[in-house]
Amino acid sequence: MNLARLAQLSASLRTSGLDALALNPSPSLVYLTGLHFHMMERPMVAVFTPDAPPTLILPELELPKVEGLPVHVFPYGEDPAGWQAVFRAALGSLNLDGKRIGVEPRALRLLEFRYLQAAAPSCAFPDASEVVSRLRVHKDADEVAAIRRAVHIAQSALEATIPLIKIGMTEKELAAELVMQLLRHGSQPEMPFAPIVSTGPNSANPHATPSDRPLQPGDLLVVDWGATCDGYISDLTRTFAVGDLEPEEEKIHRLVQEANTAGRLAARPGIPCAAVDQAARTVIEQAGYGAFFIHRTGHGIGIEGHEEPYIRNDNMQLLEPGMAFTIEPGIYLPGRNGVRIEDNIVITETGAECLSDLPRELRVVG
Amino acid sequence: MNLARLAQLSASLRTSGLDALALNPSPSLVYLTGLHFHMMERPMVAVFTPDAPPTLILPELELPKVEGLPVHVFPYGEDPAGWQAVFRAALGSLNLDGKRIGVEPRALRLLEFRYLQAAAPSCAFPDASEVVSRLRVHKDADEVAAIRRAVHIAQSALEATIPLIKIGMTEKELAAELVMQLLRHGSQPEMPFAPIVSTGPNSANPHATPSDRPLQPGDLLVVDWGATCDGYISDLTRTFAVGDLEPEEEKIHRLVQEANTAGRLAARPGIPCAAVDQAARTVIEQAGYGAFFIHRTGHGIGIEGHEEPYIRNDNMQLLEPGMAFTIEPGIYLPGRNGVRIEDNIVITETGAECLSDLPRELRVVG
Repeated sequence: MNLARLAQLSASLRTSGLDALALNPSPSLVYLTGLHFHMMERPMVAVFTPDAPPTLILPELELPKVEGLPVHVFPYGEDPAGWQAVFRAALGSLNLDGKRIGVEPRALRLLEFRYLQAAAPSCAFPDASEVVSRLRVHKDADEVAAIRRAVHIAQSALEATIPLIKIGMTEKELAAELVMQLLRHGSQPEMPFAPIVSTGPNSANPHATPSDRPLQPGDLLVVDWGATCDGYISDLTRTFAVGDLEPEEEKIHRLVQEANTAGRLAARPGIPCAAVDQAARTVIEQAGYGAFFIHRTGHGIGIEGHEEPYIRNDNMQLLEPGMAFTIEPGIYLPGRNGVRIEDNIVITETGAECLSDLPRELRVVG
Repeated sequence: MNLARLAQLSASLRTSGLDALALNPSPSLVYLTGLHFHMMERPMVAVFTPDAPPTLILPELELPKVEGLPVHVFPYGEDPAGWQAVFRAALGSLNLDGKRIGVEPRALRLLEFRYLQAAAPSCAFPDASEVVSRLRVHKDADEVAAIRRAVHIAQSALEATIPLIKIGMTEKELAAELVMQLLRHGSQPEMPFAPIVSTGPNSANPHATPSDRPLQPGDLLVVDWGATCDGYISDLTRTFAVGDLEPEEEKIHRLVQEANTAGRLAARPGIPCAAVDQAARTVIEQAGYGAFFIHRTGHGIGIEGHEEPYIRNDNMQLLEPGMAFTIEPGIYLPGRNGVRIEDNIVITETGAECLSDLPRELRVVG
């Protein structure tokens, strides 16, 4: 339980006109309570109200996790036939008839939602994503320190992996080696995402899954990876040359590097997310590659790999101190190759600090 | 695209009285299409109807993944303001007014559901989990072979880890070492779950998260781990002695081992899941520890770590050839210690084959 955060949540619920917040085992639940649950076929829901301790509906076998905590617990047994009654008892205990129970549509599954709805049929369930993200988006010093450690682990792991990269090894083999190095350098086993290792034409797909394609001379090699430390994540990308490249490939790498620099330099408190996106995008657009930068410039990082703020050209949300996010412009030439260079920055009182410092220049590997 | 499975799905939709099935990036989507998408703030939905190619609603940046596939694609850009219209166009193209669109409540999030519901307000969205799980629950020879490989990788990784276990190392350190060995022995980086390594009183929590607690003489040590191979998973548990144990700890280990054997021997086609649970449970109940076996005896495995069939004492579903699941009885003495022994079996025409063969006897480590 993080009592300070629970107090902030209570205040936030009151000003948002919400009577309660219902969460499943989501990152927001971890943020507010420190409690980790598996999300599986057994529904687990926590209901927060402004004036009472959290109410938890969970399988009996999870009881040891909450023993001694200041929570109201409604456990259920293994037979699903009994679960709805437990949800009804839990919601009934909170006097929420006709009230507004906020939910997080990005995390809550239809499984939990239908139990909640049947247990509180007179309630509305508005999107309350902002209520929690407004708290989560401002990282305190401890949170920034954890992200910094996660960046450090990721960078050390990649530096240890680079000398092992050989022509002929497959994307999957390189990804597995990188994961081992991440663990060796101290990442928690639950990583933010499985590393993307994509080569040659596969690198034109920003979300490629590592394949059995072997590294070949002339390839661009995109590595998008991150570590987890004390529950916070890093998310970096570097693009390498496997042997000699074509001039256009060197050119798009240089452009993406310039766009990355422009994005990092633009970030400061008081300007909209869109301005950071625009700074990076303009570099690529002016060189005639705008159509090949097919995603936003970045996304927030913290407990999750993707969270607020989103660095999109339509997002007028203003940057504030403590916001941490990626700067990751890219150019993707379909069927040919791709480049992405990604750093992690945090907004300070006066500008932005870049937490990652691995060289961005084109390095030759293999 | 797996055309044979899509044809099975079409037949299954028809006999289930469903006009369509809507999936988000779930294991069932992987099963039917082989397509992997990240589940994040951008909703991705595939709609299957009996007579047409699948309709995919997805972010533009995912287009490279579906290029050339026999699908109808409705891509959307980065600005969420435009997403609902794309959902409306996609659903509109399918003539589903007033029809029944099945969903998987365990996978579908409120995010995707609300876009679907707003795009097809006259439709019903019944729970169609069974329609896909009925297909997925029967593993063919290739699927069993993949699970077998995942078991083999997991066993080899644990055998390589055991000699490294030392008194004083923490649960987290042991978990990290095990993950490294899993990768070294060929597991895909996306593992079924982060290994559980729990010692002493922590082992009384079946779903413990590895902590900084160091291994101490006299501890019971529970290791619950698995590997992924070709998209299929294994899920095993062994319990070790760190030095000498108390007589009761040796006794509960022996009981759990006997319960595991009883469960494995009971499994065969034609009997209900409940009978397997009962066979394992009876051993523990008759010894007076029934109250401390606080979960079901097992769960199905395949693409997911938890899927049908569930080996619960209220589940009268009959076992059939090709069903693959865990047998994992346990005894948990709150505040003191716990034991679990878990194997992976598959139902054959005449009985059951146990895919895991790591010794189950109490081994002393450290």
